[in-house]
Amino acid sequence: MAAAIKLNGFPCKADITADDFFFAGLKRAGNTNNAAGSNVTAANVQSFPGVNTLGVSMARIDYAPGGQNPPHTHPRATEIIFVTEGVLEVGFITTANKLFTKTVTVGDVFVFPRGLVHFQQNRGRGPASVIAGFNSQLQGTQVIATTLFAAAPPVPSDVLAKAFRVSNEDIDAVKAKFR
Amino acid sequence: MAAAIKLNGFPCKADITADDFFFAGLKRAGNTNNAAGSNVTAANVQSFPGVNTLGVSMARIDYAPGGQNPPHTHPRATEIIFVTEGVLEVGFITTANKLFTKTVTVGDVFVFPRGLVHFQQNRGRGPASVIAGFNSQLQGTQVIATTLFAAAPPVPSDVLAKAFRVSNEDIDAVKAKFR
Amino acid sequence: MAAAIKLNGFPCKADITADDFFFAGLKRAGNTNNAAGSNVTAANVQSFPGVNTLGVSMARIDYAPGGQNPPHTHPRATEIIFVTEGVLEVGFITTANKLFTKTVTVGDVFVFPRGLVHFQQNRGRGPASVIAGFNSQLQGTQVIATTLFAAAPPVPSDVLAKAFRVSNEDIDAVKAKFR
Amino acid sequence: MAAAIKLNGFPCKADITADDFFFAGLKRAGNTNNAAGSNVTAANVQSFPGVNTLGVSMARIDYAPGGQNPPHTHPRATEIIFVTEGVLEVGFITTANKLFTKTVTVGDVFVFPRGLVHFQQNRGRGPASVIAGFNSQLQGTQVIATTLFAAAPPVPSDVLAKAFRVSNEDIDAVKAKFR
Amino acid sequence: MAAAIKLNGFPCKADITADDFFFAGLKRAGNTNNAAGSNVTAANVQSFPGVNTLGVSMARIDYAPGGQNPPHTHPRATEIIFVTEGVLEVGFITTANKLFTKTVTVGDVFVFPRGLVHFQQNRGRGPASVIAGFNSQLQGTQVIATTLFAAAPPVPSDVLAKAFRVSNEDIDAVKAKFR
Amino acid sequence: MAAAIKLNGFPCKADITADDFFFAGLKRAGNTNNAAGSNVTAANVQSFPGVNTLGVSMARIDYAPGGQNPPHTHPRATEIIFVTEGVLEVGFITTANKLFTKTVTVGDVFVFPRGLVHFQQNRGRGPASVIAGFNSQLQGTQVIATTLFAAAPPVPSDVLAKAFRVSNEDIDAVKAKFR
Repeated sequence: MAAAIKLNGFPCKADITADDFFFAGLKRAGNTNNAAGSNVTAANVQSFPGVNTLGVSMARIDYAPGGQNPPHTHPRATEIIFVTEGVLEVGFITTANKLFTKTVTVGDVFVFPRGLVHFQQNRGRGPASVIAGFNSQLQGTQVIATTLFAAAPPVPSDVLAKAFRVSNEDIDAVKAKFR
Repeated sequence: MAAAIKLNGFPCKADITADDFFFAGLKRAGNTNNAAGSNVTAANVQSFPGVNTLGVSMARIDYAPGGQNPPHTHPRATEIIFVTEGVLEVGFITTANKLFTKTVTVGDVFVFPRGLVHFQQNRGRGPASVIAGFNSQLQGTQVIATTLFAAAPPVPSDVLAKAFRVSNEDIDAVKAKFR
Repeated sequence: MAAAIKLNGFPCKADITADDFFFAGLKRAGNTNNAAGSNVTAANVQSFPGVNTLGVSMARIDYAPGGQNPPHTHPRATEIIFVTEGVLEVGFITTANKLFTKTVTVGDVFVFPRGLVHFQQNRGRGPASVIAGFNSQLQGTQVIATTLFAAAPPVPSDVLAKAFRVSNEDIDAVKAKFR
Repeated sequence: MAAAIKLNGFPCKADITADDFFFAGLKRAGNTNNAAGSNVTAANVQSFPGVNTLGVSMARIDYAPGGQNPPHTHPRATEIIFVTEGVLEVGFITTANKLFTKTVTVGDVFVFPRGLVHFQQNRGRGPASVIAGFNSQLQGTQVIATTLFAAAPPVPSDVLAKAFRVSNEDIDAVKAKFR
Repeated sequence: MAAAIKLNGFPCKADITADDFFFAGLKRAGNTNNAAGSNVTAANVQSFPGVNTLGVSMARIDYAPGGQNPPHTHPRATEIIFVTEGVLEVGFITTANKLFTKTVTVGDVFVFPRGLVHFQQNRGRGPASVIAGFNSQLQGTQVIATTLFAAAPPVPSDVLAKAFRVSNEDIDAVKAKFR
Repeated sequence: MAAAIKLNGFPCKADITADDFFFAGLKRAGNTNNAAGSNVTAANVQSFPGVNTLGVSMARIDYAPGGQNPPHTHPRATEIIFVTEGVLEVGFITTANKLFTKTVTVGDVFVFPRGLVHFQQNRGRGPASVIAGFNSQLQGTQVIATTLFAAAPPVPSDVLAKAFRVSNEDIDAVKAKFR
């Protein structure tokens, strides 16, 4: 319906029901059978349009044993997590280049300030999971490794080589892993 | 330390550690042995100072069988909940006086827009609990019944009687229940 | 004109004149011949589209003798009033459940912080009126009694009974008054 | 009390009462016996500290016959006025250099967008007055004539002469009127 | 394309390229052969749509010898300048009517707070230029002299005469210079 | 002066002069004799306290031949650059993992949206420099390589190894380069 009102690029529905404010997509664990051994299921404005203009979203993150949510940033949101299963090493790095890290277990809460690089690593023997709250309906995510090594078009290898102080070949080898 | 820097009235610590961003207070169910049959355990700037300036907080809400988180508002935050146990009837009323209500179970997500009256009622046979995310470090809460019937000093009974279209005696009888 | 630009769901006019920034609707007292004995005439984006994006609105509130603007909240605005006629008892309740109340007369100013339950009760012998300023073009209003007892569909009576610590029958009796 | 908490440079009181949210200073007309023939009495955070952090303020503006609130801006607020007495020609100029002007009388409302030059000129035979609402606790005011011709130290006359396309002597003559 | 999504009244493009984030329009000096002896070339959302929603813009300002950027305000932005050529006397006036002024040369930085009247006057023998950064994608500009003396329709001369404490004829003479 | 008013942790001076709004620190090129071959000289609230509360800052970035401002983010600001010397390849990666890149020369403008990874690489034969504007008084910077490989304490090597799909030894080799 092309002429419908939109806000922030998302539809502004006229006939809303309670189901617009409800989301069942976090019920089940995501598939962690991937390179990172983790899965982020988002309840943000892209999957859950009812949060548009409300300034919040949630996500469920599942981690296989040994899995991780690799270092990444959210340009538009602070994240606060509640651990629902397992044992995780979590951390973020400040703009003063200090790492704040902690091992957290079921029922623990940890907060990652807006825009800072952070990660969660499963340190338990079994699976782990968290529920994350964000103060944005669309937090945005940049996973550092894929941002730098798997962007399209690719970030020039010599830019990355100089940044990481390695050879172009080293960079190309990492890029190959992300194809 | 009176001369320390404060932001929003809360201390701005100089020597921070990872523990400042960590909170263990949501690990255990709150005591629901009270009139409402529920308990809100907050992880906001009052209990968890590390969220100061970060614009997020969390809470764990526990409900005894038959318990409720009674109709209330948060002046400063939208709330998004994830059900961790049980079966709840949840709802909010809009400024157009429409009720949006839904029965939610484990793994479901529901969102309550900033400032609107909302509630959760345990509709299962056992206990229930949710994890709530807020887009404020201090959401603030006004439980309608205690705000109107248990404020100090009391809201004048004739004001309430006219508002609810009952007698002063009816109002005083309700006030007596909240003493 | 379906293709016109809209902002916040309201039209963004191309051909504006001084009349777009002018509103005559607060000139006359509203009809206070109703249950509350009061009338709120709003000069907000719904009645006065010119305030769209400007972040302000006004209202005129008239009170019959004995009338009241019953306990209510504005989810999106702080309200500041200037008394133009009569004698009013005004008050708001904080999130710490303290009532701040004052009797105000012509020329007095009082402020009600964003999102908090507040009321005005005519305590004079004649009519009263105020001019209210808001820091939002659409403050939103939830009158507590109608929100809880006259929503559509209705808030379940057992939810309200538990909240107010009365019987379902007591709740239904109040609901009947709002039909 | 030097160590008290402050927010925005204004005290954050611990022991507040209803009087902190009350202001009687707009009750009486200001003294309009001055060059402009007008007087602005402000109810903002400087005179009415209770509005600190609340994002609103009010003012009462009185105009003698022939008086004016001369062209000025508020860097931090939109202004919305309600005419309480008299007849005023009001106007503002947009960034596209269009003047929007209107003659308003008792009960009329007009809005002046944030940061734009605006004025009110008494066009009636008797006094006039308005109540103004602002969406800031400290709107700030720059009266154009005094800003340019009566600043300390003075704005260089050749800068003003070039800006207004007149001679330095013309500028100095105007400056002399503001001493 | 009438059905395209717009944000803030500007198109929200679907097929973006690097060129959308690039602007070459500040490369060359603007034409300063005018009454003010200056030229502002803007890189804001009107000329450079890619900054829409990003909250920043830039401008290049060129000044002929003796030229000036006359006293003006930006309703929506603080401005920070970096001098790229020449010698300028720059200044702004506060809401307390204090002038802060400084002579700046190549490589110097000066900041003009949001909404305050400010100016730059070439005080060197040759041309001058600055690069200005703004914290808005559309800062808006009101040049005081043209706002007051060249608006359409005109600001009434008696309003200006009273404001500047001169005669209507004096005002009309200035207005004539801006035709 | 411990009891002075502070805002955002920075002093709120009582006796301000024009020098508080002036900064000469960008006059000269920074020393690019370092591993990255670049130098960022900041004019933000840490070096230039006068921008406190004003929401803007600037920086001068100098690049030796072959030098780069390596991939990094600013958690709190969009950046807009104006090239003052040389030839640069600039780029940023979106949250959809697209690279937008462009070769820019003297007088060109490019914008990097808030929070996204971006870089500038000197592609000319001589030195290069830009003036950057930010919509924050303290943009914050996280250089990806030093954030991940030179934080204190270090980010665990196995976390990085899994993220970049290389061995722990590979990670340790990179870490060694940053000591």
